[in-house]
Amino acid sequence: MVKAAATDALVIAGRPLASRLVMGTGGGSVNLAVLGEALRASGTVLTTVAMRRVDAISGMGVLPLLKEYGIEPLPNTAGCRTASEAVLTAELAREALETDWIKLEVVADDRTLLPDPVELLVAAEQLVAAGFTVLPYTNDDPVLARRLAEVGCAAVMPLGSPIGSALGIRNPHNIALIVEEATVPVILDAGIGTASDAVQAMELGCDGVLLATAVTGARDPVAMATAMRLAVESGRLAYRAGRVPRRWYAQASTPPVYE
Amino acid sequence: MVKAAATDALVIAGRPLASRLVMGTGGGSVNLAVLGEALRASGTVLTTVAMRRVDAISGMGVLPLLKEYGIEPLPNTAGCRTASEAVLTAELAREALETDWIKLEVVADDRTLLPDPVELLVAAEQLVAAGFTVLPYTNDDPVLARRLAEVGCAAVMPLGSPIGSALGIRNPHNIALIVEEATVPVILDAGIGTASDAVQAMELGCDGVLLATAVTGARDPVAMATAMRLAVESGRLAYRAGRVPRRWYAQASTPPVYE
Amino acid sequence: MVKAAATDALVIAGRPLASRLVMGTGGGSVNLAVLGEALRASGTVLTTVAMRRVDAISGMGVLPLLKEYGIEPLPNTAGCRTASEAVLTAELAREALETDWIKLEVVADDRTLLPDPVELLVAAEQLVAAGFTVLPYTNDDPVLARRLAEVGCAAVMPLGSPIGSALGIRNPHNIALIVEEATVPVILDAGIGTASDAVQAMELGCDGVLLATAVTGARDPVAMATAMRLAVESGRLAYRAGRVPRRWYAQASTPPVYE
Amino acid sequence: MVKAAATDALVIAGRPLASRLVMGTGGGSVNLAVLGEALRASGTVLTTVAMRRVDAISGMGVLPLLKEYGIEPLPNTAGCRTASEAVLTAELAREALETDWIKLEVVADDRTLLPDPVELLVAAEQLVAAGFTVLPYTNDDPVLARRLAEVGCAAVMPLGSPIGSALGIRNPHNIALIVEEATVPVILDAGIGTASDAVQAMELGCDGVLLATAVTGARDPVAMATAMRLAVESGRLAYRAGRVPRRWYAQASTPPVYE
Repeated sequence: MVKAAATDALVIAGRPLASRLVMGTGGGSVNLAVLGEALRASGTVLTTVAMRRVDAISGMGVLPLLKEYGIEPLPNTAGCRTASEAVLTAELAREALETDWIKLEVVADDRTLLPDPVELLVAAEQLVAAGFTVLPYTNDDPVLARRLAEVGCAAVMPLGSPIGSALGIRNPHNIALIVEEATVPVILDAGIGTASDAVQAMELGCDGVLLATAVTGARDPVAMATAMRLAVESGRLAYRAGRVPRRWYAQASTPPVYE
Repeated sequence: MVKAAATDALVIAGRPLASRLVMGTGGGSVNLAVLGEALRASGTVLTTVAMRRVDAISGMGVLPLLKEYGIEPLPNTAGCRTASEAVLTAELAREALETDWIKLEVVADDRTLLPDPVELLVAAEQLVAAGFTVLPYTNDDPVLARRLAEVGCAAVMPLGSPIGSALGIRNPHNIALIVEEATVPVILDAGIGTASDAVQAMELGCDGVLLATAVTGARDPVAMATAMRLAVESGRLAYRAGRVPRRWYAQASTPPVYE
Repeated sequence: MVKAAATDALVIAGRPLASRLVMGTGGGSVNLAVLGEALRASGTVLTTVAMRRVDAISGMGVLPLLKEYGIEPLPNTAGCRTASEAVLTAELAREALETDWIKLEVVADDRTLLPDPVELLVAAEQLVAAGFTVLPYTNDDPVLARRLAEVGCAAVMPLGSPIGSALGIRNPHNIALIVEEATVPVILDAGIGTASDAVQAMELGCDGVLLATAVTGARDPVAMATAMRLAVESGRLAYRAGRVPRRWYAQASTPPVYE
Repeated sequence: MVKAAATDALVIAGRPLASRLVMGTGGGSVNLAVLGEALRASGTVLTTVAMRRVDAISGMGVLPLLKEYGIEPLPNTAGCRTASEAVLTAELAREALETDWIKLEVVADDRTLLPDPVELLVAAEQLVAAGFTVLPYTNDDPVLARRLAEVGCAAVMPLGSPIGSALGIRNPHNIALIVEEATVPVILDAGIGTASDAVQAMELGCDGVLLATAVTGARDPVAMATAMRLAVESGRLAYRAGRVPRRWYAQASTPPVYE
């Protein structure tokens, strides 16, 4: 199994990642020590960091922690409402963190934090042109996902449900349609509430899962981080193993021999 | 985590079991070599064996395999339609396999393989009186589950959906009601189709999962067995970790700092 | 449509009923005037009445109301916990209301009000033997439903979810299995919360719906009673009309002509 | 009820409509006679007509039928892939049918027929500027729905699931979010497969339902059209009546009196 996992790595923009679980750092009120333990338990190698709050917590911030654990920061543009704000934030991130990977978020309002499809697409195009490796947080619209791939995004990150709602995957049909025609990796982002949600994402064929609140908001974040690590591995294996078909009627699993 | 699992063992009839996953041997057309590998990958320590077919396949049968792997056989009464048939089969199993543990199945018909509630309860009472450790396969009726515990069963094993249907857990509400008032371990038995079903069972508070077809009927049984082992561990951890509450609206997982 | 409905009457024990909706009188705190209006709006011709509270509210009670509206009372054995209690209550009802129709309820506890399968079956057998037309409230177990029909019940009344929970139909698969092999009418009883639940019951092939709280507990009971009347008619028509198959992909409903 | 319905009319662009059900004419292989009967049974007062096929079937076409029944045609731009195509088609429709109402469809591909969010928004803006009353077929993204209303559309028509899929409402949460903040009527468009889907749309607070295949593809289109008429009325009433809250446990609907 370990061997299988090694040869089944998630590759984004030509770069293999040792884990299919990307864990964010927000969403809960955990202290840094617990957050660090949870990040380690999750097995993540990539952690989203909101650029617009890095300065505010620098010193006591999350970046030294990531460095200590050998986890790479993935800056995001959380809080941006327009393409130009997002592009500016990405530029700052590139300079500050010395990475051209950017998790692109352009949200339409604070109540739903849903992506603005128009601004998102514009921002993605500009960032690709500026040499970024763009990972856009998008809604679950297969058409928008296709468009984002077409303009050169390195992955698409559709939501399961609104950020922080923990409502799981509200529309598995759309996620399946996105996966079916995807030309870049699909990372389920937002809405994961518990381990079975993460397994379902992987069983639908997603290439990875991004979550934060599900861990940082759990009663025991470290235990939940471990659960999530196992969930993503389990779901990936189940997807590749090829599940048994559903049947309307029963089928004896231990058919007795009638002599 | 390994340590946590060690102190969080499933205990049935006073006996701790090293795994919360019980794997059956039927339901697919795997050969013995693959079955053996899958059993090992699943981490199970207890495997159901249909008494009414043991003779038929003895010699090349599954029992030597279990012995080799140190997995204990759990005889079942699959194929029995009445209490008296089931009691007789259990007696034969006790003699043949030298165990007084019996997975009790009394089904009503071949089409659905659903338990007959009346015959099941009668059989359970008689077997308890005869000194058996009785693990009854039952429907998802909380009242019948309670009754089975009251007559002395060592666990209750409600179905998620009909045997071999792979339809998952059709009525999580009933499983939750059974768990809520359970005085003995609850093992979700029948209906598991893929890893997320097993995680869901554990997240609902079940103490374990029993499955067969989901593994033996998968395209790659060994990979699916591994997925199931991870799924049960993941679901148990998630249950104990205390999931984040669901919210109707979004909540920023990385709230930007507005200076 | 009106004509179709006339020739598509629900027949129980040889007797055609002009409505497939049976409305109960409990579950809310409506006054008698509103209750009367709601009953009339529902179009019901049969209304369950709890025998164990008839005396308590006689005088201002519901029976004169039913008489005024030409609705027949269907006594039930709500509150009974054992077969003998239920049989006694049915005997009293027969005497008091001069009907041998009885809605049989034998519940296991007050928390869930779920039927006790063993006591229910015993009571059903005894009441059939005593000449009653027995309509048993049962769980959604297809095996128990079959058994109740076999002992001579005139219909079976499986629950959608616990009485008063308004959780709708928790296990449509079981209801479909019950309908498939039913030899007597199937009336969905308990759990209906809103109109779409009632439509779903009828689309699953149920012959009728029984509800109370969904109407008496609504903010506007009379409007909801009308909604339920239309829902049952709509669901019956949709069931008979033969729905279009589901498709994974789109299909143009107005295919353009490309010249 | 009839009176209530009269005072609860759907109003689009200042114009009250006598029915909340809009029925399309495509999706099945019904002949004109059956289509006519179905339209009449549905009670619709507005019927979508694909402009790009009107010519092809003129003479024997659907327009004379609509005239005969007093049903107003609502031209759509089905088959258009770009904003400019859609605008051109709308202009032709305005001239041919002498109406400035247009159901705007701009789809991204033939496989899913999902709306292209970017082209749709552009087309909507241009058509509003050109004096049309624009009713856009959109996905279930609350942000795009809001944007369409902001640019002046007279209603928004989110899908339940892809056109012709009959998969019902895949994401009720999104539909509820759209309804919550809607400033124009919300018409559920596409995906309706059977009557309960239509009721659910109305219970979620939609102001109307648009469907075609569910009727034209049913085994008995006229019966299904009637079912849909009743479904929309039922769902509207249920929505306004205020459903009873869901409860985890039972609540006696006929609480017995214990003396």
